[in-house]
Amino acid sequence: MKMHDFIIIGGGACGLTAGLYASRGGLKPLLLEKEAPGGQLLLTDNIENYPGIEHINGFDLAQKMMNHAQKFGLEMKYEGVETLDLHDDHVALKTKNGEYKAKYVLASLGSNPRKLGVPGEDKYRGKGVSYCATCDGAFYKDKECIIVGGGSSALDEGIALAEHASKVTIVHRRDTFTGEKYLEDLAKKNEKIEFLMEHEVKEIRAGDDGKVDRVLLYDKKNDKEYEFATEGVFIFIGYIPNSSILEGQVKLEHGEVVVNATMQSSHPRLYAGGDIRQGSVKQVIASGGDGAMAAISILHKLRSEQ
Amino acid sequence: MKMHDFIIIGGGACGLTAGLYASRGGLKPLLLEKEAPGGQLLLTDNIENYPGIEHINGFDLAQKMMNHAQKFGLEMKYEGVETLDLHDDHVALKTKNGEYKAKYVLASLGSNPRKLGVPGEDKYRGKGVSYCATCDGAFYKDKECIIVGGGSSALDEGIALAEHASKVTIVHRRDTFTGEKYLEDLAKKNEKIEFLMEHEVKEIRAGDDGKVDRVLLYDKKNDKEYEFATEGVFIFIGYIPNSSILEGQVKLEHGEVVVNATMQSSHPRLYAGGDIRQGSVKQVIASGGDGAMAAISILHKLRSEQ
Repeated sequence: MKMHDFIIIGGGACGLTAGLYASRGGLKPLLLEKEAPGGQLLLTDNIENYPGIEHINGFDLAQKMMNHAQKFGLEMKYEGVETLDLHDDHVALKTKNGEYKAKYVLASLGSNPRKLGVPGEDKYRGKGVSYCATCDGAFYKDKECIIVGGGSSALDEGIALAEHASKVTIVHRRDTFTGEKYLEDLAKKNEKIEFLMEHEVKEIRAGDDGKVDRVLLYDKKNDKEYEFATEGVFIFIGYIPNSSILEGQVKLEHGEVVVNATMQSSHPRLYAGGDIRQGSVKQVIASGGDGAMAAISILHKLRSEQ
Repeated sequence: MKMHDFIIIGGGACGLTAGLYASRGGLKPLLLEKEAPGGQLLLTDNIENYPGIEHINGFDLAQKMMNHAQKFGLEMKYEGVETLDLHDDHVALKTKNGEYKAKYVLASLGSNPRKLGVPGEDKYRGKGVSYCATCDGAFYKDKECIIVGGGSSALDEGIALAEHASKVTIVHRRDTFTGEKYLEDLAKKNEKIEFLMEHEVKEIRAGDDGKVDRVLLYDKKNDKEYEFATEGVFIFIGYIPNSSILEGQVKLEHGEVVVNATMQSSHPRLYAGGDIRQGSVKQVIASGGDGAMAAISILHKLRSEQ
C-alpha cells in the first residue's frame, strides 16, 4: 500500500488551507471528504467576517478555497473515514472504498450541530426541523418560524432566515444573549424578528400531514407551558466535535482534540485544526490559520525525516 | 482621559482582523498604526496563499482588509506608539500626538526581516528579492535562486525552495553553518542545492526589465568579486520582532512575545498576535486567525467584567 506523506480528513476551511499550503510546499497531499467540501461554511448564508472579502455566501467561499487548493495540486477524494489507527511511524485509515497509509494526518473533521433532545426533533427533521437556515430557509418563504438559541449563530441565522420567513421568533432559555453585540443589535432592529426570552422548547409537534405546525414552549419566568404555532424550528445551540474516530487514541476534552501550538495532538503523527480542536473560535479565518500552521509544521517534520 | 475598551497597535493582517472582529462584536476599537496599514503585506507583490483569493497584490489585500474593518466601525489613527505601560486595570500608551488608556491592548507590531544592507536590496524587493520562501517560492519554479544565510531558517527555506527552483545556491559568509545539523545534512544531500561558503553578497543587480538577474559576490578566501547569475535572492539572516516597547514588561523570548492559546501575554491586559508572537508561522491567514482569537478573547473578558 502506498505511503502518503500527508492525508487531510475533512474539507472545511482548515483542511482546504492545509491542502493549499502542503501543495505549495511541494507535497502531494490527499484530502478525504465524506460529503461536500466547505464544512460549516456550507451552513452559513452570509459570511461578512472573512477579512478582505466583505460579503460572500458560504458555499461560494468553500468553492473558491477548494479551487484555490486544487490549482496548486491538492488531490481530493469523496470518501468518509471510518477507522483511524495510530502507529509509531504512520497512520492507517479505512474508508468504504479502501485503505490508506500516511506519515502524517490532519483531522479537520469539524463539528456538528448539537441537538435539543426533545420529542419530535428527530422525527420531524426535514419536515420542519432544521439546523441550517442557509440550506432550508428558502422552504419557509412567507412562513412563521422559530430559532432556538442565543449565541452568535442563533442571531445570525435568525437574521438570514428573516430574509425568507414572514416572522422569526428567537426562543432563548436565558434572559440575555451570548452572541456578538453587532448581531444582537441587527436582530433587534429587524421588524420581522421577535423574541421569547427565558423560554424553552419542550416538544416539537406536527399536524395530520406530518409537518411541524407548533411547538410546546415552557415559560420559565411564569412557570407555564403553552403551544406556539410555527412551521419551522431552526436549532442553533452549539456543536459536537466529529472526533469519534479519535476516541481512546489521542487526548480529547469534551470531545475536542487537545493540541499544542503547532496543532499536533498527543500523538506525534496526528494533527488537528479548526472546529474539532480545543480552543477553536470557530471562525473561517482562524480555522484557515490552523490549517496553515499544521501544514507548515508537518512540512518541517517530513523534511527532518528525509 | 478616556478609557478605551480595546486598542490595537499595528495594522497588519492580525491587527486589522482583530479590528474587524472587535467592531462586529460591539466594541469601538482604536487601531494605532505608525505608517501605513498592511505590515509585511505591503512588502509582498504577489500573494497566492490567502485561501479564497487566488492572486492579489499585498497592498490591495491590506486595503481590502482595512476597508472591511472600517466598514464595521474600526477607528484608525496614524500614530506610532512610543511607550507602553502596563497597570493592573489598564494599559497606558504614549504617541507623539497624545496619550491613550485602554482596558486591553493587542500588540500586533509584527517583525521585520533582518536586512543584508546592500545596494539593490530595497529597490528589488518583490522583484527578485524575498524574505520568505514559503510565501514566494512557487513564483520561482524551474528558476535558479540563491539563499543568503547560514542558520536553520536559511537551510530550511533552501530545502523548501529546492522543491520549486531548478537550482538553489546557499551563499554563506562563514565556512560552517550555524543551523541544525540535520538540516545541513539534508541540504547537502539535496542534488538541487549548491553552496558558496565564505562568500558575501555585495550588491543585487537587475536587468532592463527591473527584475533581479544577478548578484555581485565577494569571495572572501580568494579576495575577489564577481557577478553570479540568479533570478531570486532569498535572504534569511533572522527576524527582528518589533517588541522594543514591551521589553522588561512581558515575557519575551528572542524578542518574541510569549503567549497562551488565547494570545494573552504574561500580563493579562496585553495580548499579542501575528509575527511578533512566539511560534508564529508568519502567514497572512495565520496572523488573521491570531487577530480573531485575540479579539474574541478580549470580548469575552470585557463582557465578564461588566
